[in-house]
Amino acid sequence: MSGSRPEPPYVAVIFSNRLRPDAEGYAEVAERMVAMARAQPGYLGHESARGEDGFGITISYWADEASSRAWREVAEHAEAQRLGRERFYAQYDLRVAVVLRQAAFGGAP
Amino acid sequence: MSGSRPEPPYVAVIFSNRLRPDAEGYAEVAERMVAMARAQPGYLGHESARGEDGFGITISYWADEASSRAWREVAEHAEAQRLGRERFYAQYDLRVAVVLRQAAFGGAP
Repeated sequence: MSGSRPEPPYVAVIFSNRLRPDAEGYAEVAERMVAMARAQPGYLGHESARGEDGFGITISYWADEASSRAWREVAEHAEAQRLGRERFYAQYDLRVAVVLRQAAFGGAP
Repeated sequence: MSGSRPEPPYVAVIFSNRLRPDAEGYAEVAERMVAMARAQPGYLGHESARGEDGFGITISYWADEASSRAWREVAEHAEAQRLGRERFYAQYDLRVAVVLRQAAFGGAP
């Protein structure tokens, strides 16, 4: 999460995915998606990690369900327009969750 | 998630963290923690990704809040016994969330 820790409850959109070995151009699209997310109302932050095996998790955090839903609609539209999800992902799971509690250690990332 | 996709609602324990550059022995401990989680009641699965920059996200999924709480107590105790969290983590955030909705593409990982 980019430099802040909002108080629960808030919404986490968890996107777990495995990239296809031939997922060219993904980094650019991912960057653009982050820029788009930042510009959306209710955006609180995001976190992302991807290992060498191609499996990655990106979590975006939102003020409420309405803003997370609006983001998913924007994201789906943008991805569909661009290249189609089948071109990038071998597999994915998208989960919408409400964060109820949290604990932290060390400075916010 | 290991080979299955349970129906919401269920609980996600989101552990986002940055390893210290000198976090020796972490892989072993992480493996042991996964083995412990699998043996806990209510365990549904887990997902994990870590990039070259040392930032990682591990999400474990649980049938309900009670089983996720029991796991957090076991995990905290085990980590504290072993080496202390300060030895591994430069920073972490632990979030407990309820998964309300999901969508998937491709086979379960």
